[in-house]
Parts: sequence; structure tokens; C-alpha cells
Amino acid sequence: MKRKSFGEFECCIARALDEIGDPWSFLILRHALLGARRFSDFEDALEIPSSTLARRLLDLTERGLVTRRLFDERPPRVDYELTDKGRELLPMVLLLASWGERWASPLGAPLELVDAKTGTRVEPMVVDRATGRELLPGTVALRPGPSASPELSQAVLTRRPVFGAAL
Amino acid sequence: MKRKSFGEFECCIARALDEIGDPWSFLILRHALLGARRFSDFEDALEIPSSTLARRLLDLTERGLVTRRLFDERPPRVDYELTDKGRELLPMVLLLASWGERWASPLGAPLELVDAKTGTRVEPMVVDRATGRELLPGTVALRPGPSASPELSQAVLTRRPVFGAAL
Repeated sequence: MKRKSFGEFECCIARALDEIGDPWSFLILRHALLGARRFSDFEDALEIPSSTLARRLLDLTERGLVTRRLFDERPPRVDYELTDKGRELLPMVLLLASWGERWASPLGAPLELVDAKTGTRVEPMVVDRATGRELLPGTVALRPGPSASPELSQAVLTRRPVFGAAL
Repeated sequence: MKRKSFGEFECCIARALDEIGDPWSFLILRHALLGARRFSDFEDALEIPSSTLARRLLDLTERGLVTRRLFDERPPRVDYELTDKGRELLPMVLLLASWGERWASPLGAPLELVDAKTGTRVEPMVVDRATGRELLPGTVALRPGPSASPELSQAVLTRRPVFGAAL
């Protein structure tokens, strides 16, 4: 199954979705963030057909989210490790988990986020790095960036309801 | 095309992915967060076949992310509005945009996030709501929550590399 490439849109979100791929790839990244490294780690955790898993891991490697590390052992051992690009998805994964807990887990969360040292519950919140203010609908807007095409810049200026409104 | 339901996994992330659906649905939500309301708003912005768009909007409505509002006008007018469940995806969309700008936009961002009032650039960061500390790899861990099955709880305790490691 070949899906349309979203990477061609003039939109960082579409490009990100194009990179991260599909829900399976996202769940593989989630497990890598949780410490999975071996093929069998992912296989056990996801109950995914091994051919599907192999294809997704290759795809994630080619996209630079994961890197293959070979160990000179017998039998040979391969680890799949996250790159910086992959590791920087952690905050988004935490938010997705938090949203899923709130809106898609009527019986409560199967797993809870806690501080690794203290064990206290953690609630992810998105703020602006410079001011520390929470980013909420209505407080954020968009403007054309360095790579905006003339068409996009024009659209931001004239079609406010679609492109230029405060988020 | 029917994809496997991720909602059955004991994982808030998988459930969230199941709710949000696929990349098209995510981009529809993105435009709704930016102020798109009419069918034609989404159609113009996404250049998506109208049958695909209609199906995704219906799906998002059934999942409670979007609600249809009918206006008693001639010709009749329908708006698609985000529910609280849909609106609460904003922080995640901002993070995805930020990641996409950093890792998937070599020529710079086509659109930049700014403060709606001041126009200053905004950089989303994820912190713990109670302490204000940034949530980074290694600072967060998981523990079984209220709806964890005995199998999952056991797995968290014994298979640390996959389930219980610090994120």
C-alpha cells in the first residue's frame, strides 16, 4: 500500500507526518523511547508480523529516526537505537499519551507517567520556551516563514479563516 | 481500506492514534484548529478529493472530535466545529509542527508559530504542569495505571527494557 506523500505540502505538520509514517511506525518509536532495542523486544511488545516489523524498522532507519548498531558477537547481535531526530519525538509521545488517557481511556490509563526519580505523577503541558506561558487555542498564530511560497504568503494574508487565524 | 484497530492495545498512545485516525484526518484537524469551518475551506486548503474529505469529516464527527452545526439559511449552511476533545489536540499539533520544522524542513519553515498578540516567535516546550520542569528522555518513567491488566503489570515489573525503563 503506497500512500500519498504529505511531505510536499507547505506545512511542517504534513512533513512531520510524512517522516513519522503510520501508526505502526509511531508505536515502534514509542517502544524505542521506552527502551526496546532488539528486534525481539519490538516483536514481543507489539505482536506485529515480523515481516511488517522488519519493513517498518528499515523505513525508520532510512528516514534517520533509528540507527542499526551491529555487535561483534556470536550469534551476531543487532540493536536498533534512536537518533536525536527520533529521541526528540518524546515530548510529542508524552502529549499523545496524555490526550489518549483523557479522551480514549474511559477505564483510566493502563500506564501512568511518573517522574523517573520521585515516582510522582507527571502531567505534560506545552509552554513557550522563552516566556513559560501555556500555549492554548487563541494564543498562537501563524505567519509566513523563510521558505513560504508567494502563494502561501498571499493565502496567509487574504484567507484568514483558513491560514492566518489565531490557533 | 480497513486498518487494524490500535484501540485494543493497553497503551494510551495506541488508543490516541486509533482516535485521530490517519494523516489526512490529522491534517483536517490541523486546519480546523487554524479556523477552517466550511467544507470548502478544507477542500481548498487540502486539495483532497471531496469524497475522501466527506468520509474523514464524518469519521471525525462520529469519534466526537468535530461537531456539525446546521444554520437555517438558504442555501443551507453547515459548519464543522471542533469539540473540546478536538481542541485539546492543539498542543500536540504545535509540537509536531516544531519537530517538522527542525527535522523535515531543510529550507526553513513555510509557516512560523508566533504569539497571537505580540507576533514574537513561539517555541513549544513540554513541561510537567506541577513543577514546570522540562520533560526530557530519562526523566520520565511508566507505572501500571488503574486499568492495567495483570499481564501488563507483570510485564512492567519484569521486562524493564521494554516497558518500565525511564523514558
